[in-house]
Amino acid sequence: MRLGVDIGGTKTDVVVVDGGEVVARHRAPSGFGPDEVVAAATETVEAALGQAGAALGDVESIGIGVPGGVAHGVVTFALNLGIEKLDLAGTLERAWGQRPAIDNDVNVAALGAWALRGRGENSLAYLNLGTGLAAGIILDGKLWRGARGTAGEVGHISVDPAGPLDADGLPGALETYASGSGLVRQWGVGGAVARDVFEAAVRGEPGAVAIRDGLYFGTASAVRALVLMLDVETVVLGGGLSAQGDILTAGVLGVLAEWEARSDFLRSLELGERIAVLDVDIPVAALGAADLGAAEVSGARG
Amino acid sequence: MRLGVDIGGTKTDVVVVDGGEVVARHRAPSGFGPDEVVAAATETVEAALGQAGAALGDVESIGIGVPGGVAHGVVTFALNLGIEKLDLAGTLERAWGQRPAIDNDVNVAALGAWALRGRGENSLAYLNLGTGLAAGIILDGKLWRGARGTAGEVGHISVDPAGPLDADGLPGALETYASGSGLVRQWGVGGAVARDVFEAAVRGEPGAVAIRDGLYFGTASAVRALVLMLDVETVVLGGGLSAQGDILTAGVLGVLAEWEARSDFLRSLELGERIAVLDVDIPVAALGAADLGAAEVSGARG
Repeated sequence: MRLGVDIGGTKTDVVVVDGGEVVARHRAPSGFGPDEVVAAATETVEAALGQAGAALGDVESIGIGVPGGVAHGVVTFALNLGIEKLDLAGTLERAWGQRPAIDNDVNVAALGAWALRGRGENSLAYLNLGTGLAAGIILDGKLWRGARGTAGEVGHISVDPAGPLDADGLPGALETYASGSGLVRQWGVGGAVARDVFEAAVRGEPGAVAIRDGLYFGTASAVRALVLMLDVETVVLGGGLSAQGDILTAGVLGVLAEWEARSDFLRSLELGERIAVLDVDIPVAALGAADLGAAEVSGARG
Repeated sequence: MRLGVDIGGTKTDVVVVDGGEVVARHRAPSGFGPDEVVAAATETVEAALGQAGAALGDVESIGIGVPGGVAHGVVTFALNLGIEKLDLAGTLERAWGQRPAIDNDVNVAALGAWALRGRGENSLAYLNLGTGLAAGIILDGKLWRGARGTAGEVGHISVDPAGPLDADGLPGALETYASGSGLVRQWGVGGAVARDVFEAAVRGEPGAVAIRDGLYFGTASAVRALVLMLDVETVVLGGGLSAQGDILTAGVLGVLAEWEARSDFLRSLELGERIAVLDVDIPVAALGAADLGAAEVSGARG
């Protein structure tokens, strides 16, 4: 029995996996600040195990994804969770009697997406259109974390020196076009969320339509950069904004088609055919976290 | 004794490596068209072996880099060599009695750069500022070629929708800013070469100064994209334009400093400190080709 825990900025999502099947899933609000985050994770794990009729003692491995930097089980700058620095693996090991494997949420989601697609692909990028924009990268069937653990920060690539400014005042960052925080910053209405921008775009408000078109442009630009640089077989779109589903895909394919109409080389890369969108109800990060935990245990034993 | 052969668009560069040392090197013009390319490579190899007092029978492995696509020893679209498609490995095996390992010139240069830096780095990108712009990528000490063999095509990433047009009419491609062909296309003077643009920039001609500034912007943008996406420890600048040396580096560092002045995150990545420039006289691609051949032979035997 394996536990996968996705501690998101809003919700903590736990799956219990047994024999390759999800036998229980439970979601509850994440806490804010180190103590509350740990307490919420513990309660959510207990609820999920309860559903499965199991206890922590039955669990062979635990994997966790968190929205922040992770090195040796220590979480840094998980600002959406109110955590500046926390030895999460150590804290949970003392509480749970078992040390969890921990990685960045986007990295574990990439593992989950790769598993959901059958683990047969040589390479895959999971592009998380969430509060921020980042990618988890699977190469040769393994997560590529980079020399210093920061691989996949595609949101800070700029594609327009005259583009909208990010939080640092830098223009044209992909994250400004293709993340929840970026859409809201461009919209500039206090208290608004991404959905408000989409609704205004549907009503035909020009500012909102331009921002929505920018989402398509930014997402297409991220796909183009990922495939050009890494030649990943598949780019899986996930995260909150991917709930737009077919509308998002159609918009992105439209941008790609404009480029491909001019460039034989870009057309030969079949960018559009490499895009896949996950159903937002699939607990991709929690599933990937369960795989991360399983891999760490078998690696330590093997 | 190992042979490394860099068949470039202009010159074929051969090194003879024995016990880890370069014992001979010979350069001669590359041919144009399949027959001439093979003849020139054969003559250059014989001259290099002659310098070393050796013959093909003494050679344990042969590696070759070519400016084109390579799969299973077959070279495609090496347009600077007048080759549309050629079974180069098969042709040379019949002529030389030994099958060479063949890869793209930028990939073998990345292997060479990694070896020159001691093979200790977890990851490295070799950014070739040549006739075109592309990167060779070493991850976990191995070449990452991609799902379909096209990884590293950073030159087709766009960083400005209002930027100068590439050969396909697409705006703002990194290759337009940071390659010999791109500089000349922007300059628009018939028969000009990159050096003419630099000389005009030194004379203060505004168009040329803007193109030279664009080279710094494009190179800095490529470094930013490579490190953000892959978190490679080092980005080695090579290729013909890297002969600009310290002038190029200073220009690129200037652009990076402007970005880093605004963004704590970009500053934390230490982009400038990751840049290295190779001496253009070092036969980096030929050395990498020798390593490629050696690895293939030991892989086949091991």
